[in-house]
Amino acid sequence: MAEPVLVVGSIGLDTVETPCGRADGVLGGSAVYFAAAAALFAPVRLVGVVGSDFPASARRRLESRPIDLSGLEEVQGGKTFRWHGRYSQDMNDRVTVSVELNVLGEFRPRLPEAFKKTRWAFLANGPTSTQQSVREQLPRGAFVAADTMDLWIEKERPGLLRLLRDIDCLILNDSEARMLTGRTSLWDAAREALRTGPKSVVVKKGEHGAYLAGRGGPCAVPAFPIAKLVDPTGAGDAFAGGFVGWLAREGSASPGALRRALGAATVVASFACESFGPERLLSARASEVRKRLSALRRLARF
Amino acid sequence: MAEPVLVVGSIGLDTVETPCGRADGVLGGSAVYFAAAAALFAPVRLVGVVGSDFPASARRRLESRPIDLSGLEEVQGGKTFRWHGRYSQDMNDRVTVSVELNVLGEFRPRLPEAFKKTRWAFLANGPTSTQQSVREQLPRGAFVAADTMDLWIEKERPGLLRLLRDIDCLILNDSEARMLTGRTSLWDAAREALRTGPKSVVVKKGEHGAYLAGRGGPCAVPAFPIAKLVDPTGAGDAFAGGFVGWLAREGSASPGALRRALGAATVVASFACESFGPERLLSARASEVRKRLSALRRLARF
Repeated sequence: MAEPVLVVGSIGLDTVETPCGRADGVLGGSAVYFAAAAALFAPVRLVGVVGSDFPASARRRLESRPIDLSGLEEVQGGKTFRWHGRYSQDMNDRVTVSVELNVLGEFRPRLPEAFKKTRWAFLANGPTSTQQSVREQLPRGAFVAADTMDLWIEKERPGLLRLLRDIDCLILNDSEARMLTGRTSLWDAAREALRTGPKSVVVKKGEHGAYLAGRGGPCAVPAFPIAKLVDPTGAGDAFAGGFVGWLAREGSASPGALRRALGAATVVASFACESFGPERLLSARASEVRKRLSALRRLARF
Repeated sequence: MAEPVLVVGSIGLDTVETPCGRADGVLGGSAVYFAAAAALFAPVRLVGVVGSDFPASARRRLESRPIDLSGLEEVQGGKTFRWHGRYSQDMNDRVTVSVELNVLGEFRPRLPEAFKKTRWAFLANGPTSTQQSVREQLPRGAFVAADTMDLWIEKERPGLLRLLRDIDCLILNDSEARMLTGRTSLWDAAREALRTGPKSVVVKKGEHGAYLAGRGGPCAVPAFPIAKLVDPTGAGDAFAGGFVGWLAREGSASPGALRRALGAATVVASFACESFGPERLLSARASEVRKRLSALRRLARF
């Protein structure tokens, strides 16, 4: 039995427009995508906040997988975080049409006692101070991965650099890696990011796959070719969920486990793109995951 | 002993400015980079044109490798093709400062009799009608790969589409693949390009590696991480040289050979970026190539 994985991040109700259509008020948020992905490999402990408008059906949908919602705080009378995004024709760009932080704006996560010894954790994108406070509630020896974004790199650099000294793995996308380090070449950027503290750095490159530098690296995995791209929202968080979930399943962050996790993360991210919301992730079967992992390994063999 | 490889393309004297420095009047051109790369694996038959200003030292430098220059036409009193390019700070963009076609403008390649039975060939970037005329001078059963560029995709599309029905492998970069097919996703673009005729399509993605679709595919190889990028000029032609040269060495265009060739091409392209002109390619040792191939395979293992 795999060890549990803890995630702290946003839970939201998203409205998404892509060239494939539009979805209104679907389940979203970084912690949701992470949880739906990680639950393919390990039990998940989700910590987040919603308002009293959060549908019971969404809760049930998450609980159809081994996702423990006892860390899900519900603010009575509050409203759940909402995001509305619109993708470009080629889905390589998106604009935020509107965002309402609502209860997420006041979120100060406190881990339930039963969660405080979790050995595998992910600090999803959010204010650096929030990530730092969660880090401090976890054991020193836990494997902790974190994400960040342009906003915090720009506005909270000192706090972010402090956090980076306290985590094991930084997972970020290509433009964030360049912004954090000022380096254009992504291998240079990954190596430079390692100097800030984490033992491993993962750079997500969208259709170009992902790099792992530092412990377990250098390793490059191509993206899994997606037959039908419906909505890329959450793919990055699903990637992180596949990555940390896989490590928890192996119960190891050895160099080999980290490389295998990179493959698992890539495959899991491909499911996230095939539906609006986390539906496809929540319906993926273990046999489908295994099949795509084999196909990905064949793709990368030369 | 590997079978010979024929290349027809430009031979020039380049002036190149990169953040690493400037080189004036160095040996360049698509056929030169291709030949220097392919000669790492197989004897090369180079067909091209120069003026009487072409230095004897450049000729000797090429002949230090198994490159047969008996198809190198010298126009008495003519001037060699010249190109002057300047790269951006991150070397992802470049501008052409000046270009003088000179004798290349009137080049109508005619293969020497001894070259007409070559079974492995590359039609480097050039006017589509010139590429077509070379294709017709080669045996029907030869393995013929070709490159193209934005100019011909825009201006000579009908001729290009005709050529594509007559070749085995199209090798082009990401932006050219998108321009040719109108598809943004590179796997979609590669699959669409296959419908124009070639059995295989290779998409070069610079720092993101390369894809092979069709026969031998799908296969994805990451770029070889370059320790010191000096000048990316010619990397795409060196890639093609490594690719076709490897096939000639194996004497096979089987699916497995095509995948191995993709790895060899990737490694060879890395040498091309480490000096101004083809110097680093012309000095690379077989043991260095083998070592990078092993490192590339380790990089791609997960």
